Amino acid sequence: MPTLEPPKTAAAVIIGNELLSGKTEDGNLAILARTLRQLGVQLRRVVMVLDEVETIAREVRELSRTHDHLFTSGGVGPTHDDVTIEAVARAFGVRVVMSPEMEAMLRAHYGEKCTDGHLRMALVPEGAALETTVQVRWPTIRMQNTWLMPGIPEVFRMKIPVIAAKLGHDQAFVSRAVYTAMDEGVLKPLLDAVVDEFRDVDVGSYPKWMDASYKTKLTFDGRDEARVQAAVDAFLARLPAGEPLRVE
Amino acid sequence: MPTLEPPKTAAAVIIGNELLSGKTEDGNLAILARTLRQLGVQLRRVVMVLDEVETIAREVRELSRTHDHLFTSGGVGPTHDDVTIEAVARAFGVRVVMSPEMEAMLRAHYGEKCTDGHLRMALVPEGAALETTVQVRWPTIRMQNTWLMPGIPEVFRMKIPVIAAKLGHDQAFVSRAVYTAMDEGVLKPLLDAVVDEFRDVDVGSYPKWMDASYKTKLTFDGRDEARVQAAVDAFLARLPAGEPLRVE
Repeated sequence: MPTLEPPKTAAAVIIGNELLSGKTEDGNLAILARTLRQLGVQLRRVVMVLDEVETIAREVRELSRTHDHLFTSGGVGPTHDDVTIEAVARAFGVRVVMSPEMEAMLRAHYGEKCTDGHLRMALVPEGAALETTVQVRWPTIRMQNTWLMPGIPEVFRMKIPVIAAKLGHDQAFVSRAVYTAMDEGVLKPLLDAVVDEFRDVDVGSYPKWMDASYKTKLTFDGRDEARVQAAVDAFLARLPAGEPLRVE
Repeated sequence: MPTLEPPKTAAAVIIGNELLSGKTEDGNLAILARTLRQLGVQLRRVVMVLDEVETIAREVRELSRTHDHLFTSGGVGPTHDDVTIEAVARAFGVRVVMSPEMEAMLRAHYGEKCTDGHLRMALVPEGAALETTVQVRWPTIRMQNTWLMPGIPEVFRMKIPVIAAKLGHDQAFVSRAVYTAMDEGVLKPLLDAVVDEFRDVDVGSYPKWMDASYKTKLTFDGRDEARVQAAVDAFLARLPAGEPLRVE
């Protein structure tokens, strides 16, 4: 008995040779995922790709069509390995143009030291919107439903409030967790019964390895708090004496 | 003048609702990426997806055909949200069958407490190989070029030596880094010249945000150490007095 419309969907394209080589660990995905969850948006797919224009363009074309929102991370600087602007322009079939607004901001920032290299940061896909808030005044580029986020984690984080402000809040996801000393092999029939009854609640089972405090963590997630709680209660009612260890 | 064959390629499918909801941060990708790099294999693409059989099957079908090696992470336990075995079987057009070898190991491990749930961990795609080493005796399932790795980070890590042993070592990638106090806008023309001359060296530019010790880190990567060093030298020769801050 789901009582809510299905959530809006999102995907992300995480860009950078340094991530696929293992030289750098991505720090942006988890922040984006948690933000979207609070906004009631379901992140359904993340793709991590190299700094290749055509590869990125293909992903953006596909994912912007199949999801309500798309986020790219990385590749928006001025150097040869920054190809996201060009790729997004290709994906949407538009040219790359100089934004007069961003050019003026860059010239004001760099003054006499402003180079052609600096001004490349004013390039945008034609028709892109420049999103700002009162607190975050440096623009975030949005091409239709596709947000071009910077790869540098500190800057990525600074722009999260812009996304939150512009996407608006839908019913957030709620989450409950139950910790048990039972292993998954024993839990399976109990879980199957709850999963069958609560198709609109996402039930997860996560065994812990080498941890004395519990053996398996069960999670119950959804946007309808009453249904999530009912699924937890149905599961708890099936547990043997002495269980669960705790509920969060 | 590349002197080496192109590297073998790899892709990864990281599976789990808990990753896309931001409840858990993936810790397996970076370890896999660094391992492959040491083995001389280029990781070209990572896809993170939900616990959905058909979604995973589609990815495995596509990526196992377009890469030399494919690795999945997650979804290999006995519960309802563990659908990777079924998905890989679908991708390769085979049935899911009980492995007598793994069944015997599970029965030996659980003894009289062994349940049907436990025995689900003996299910494999028909025709799969069970890979072990002397040190890592619990089998890792390999279906042709596709390795089914567990999502639990501690267990994932334990199985890395099996991959290293079975894939064998190719010429590893080497990496150099140059730190400068110059910003990317100023560096761009210098970098472009080096990138043009050294097409076989992967040159990366990573600005640092709010760090007093340097402004931009340049990386030079490849499997031909002499070419990588030549690219570094060509870049250093173009820097003004007082630069670089350091070379690693």
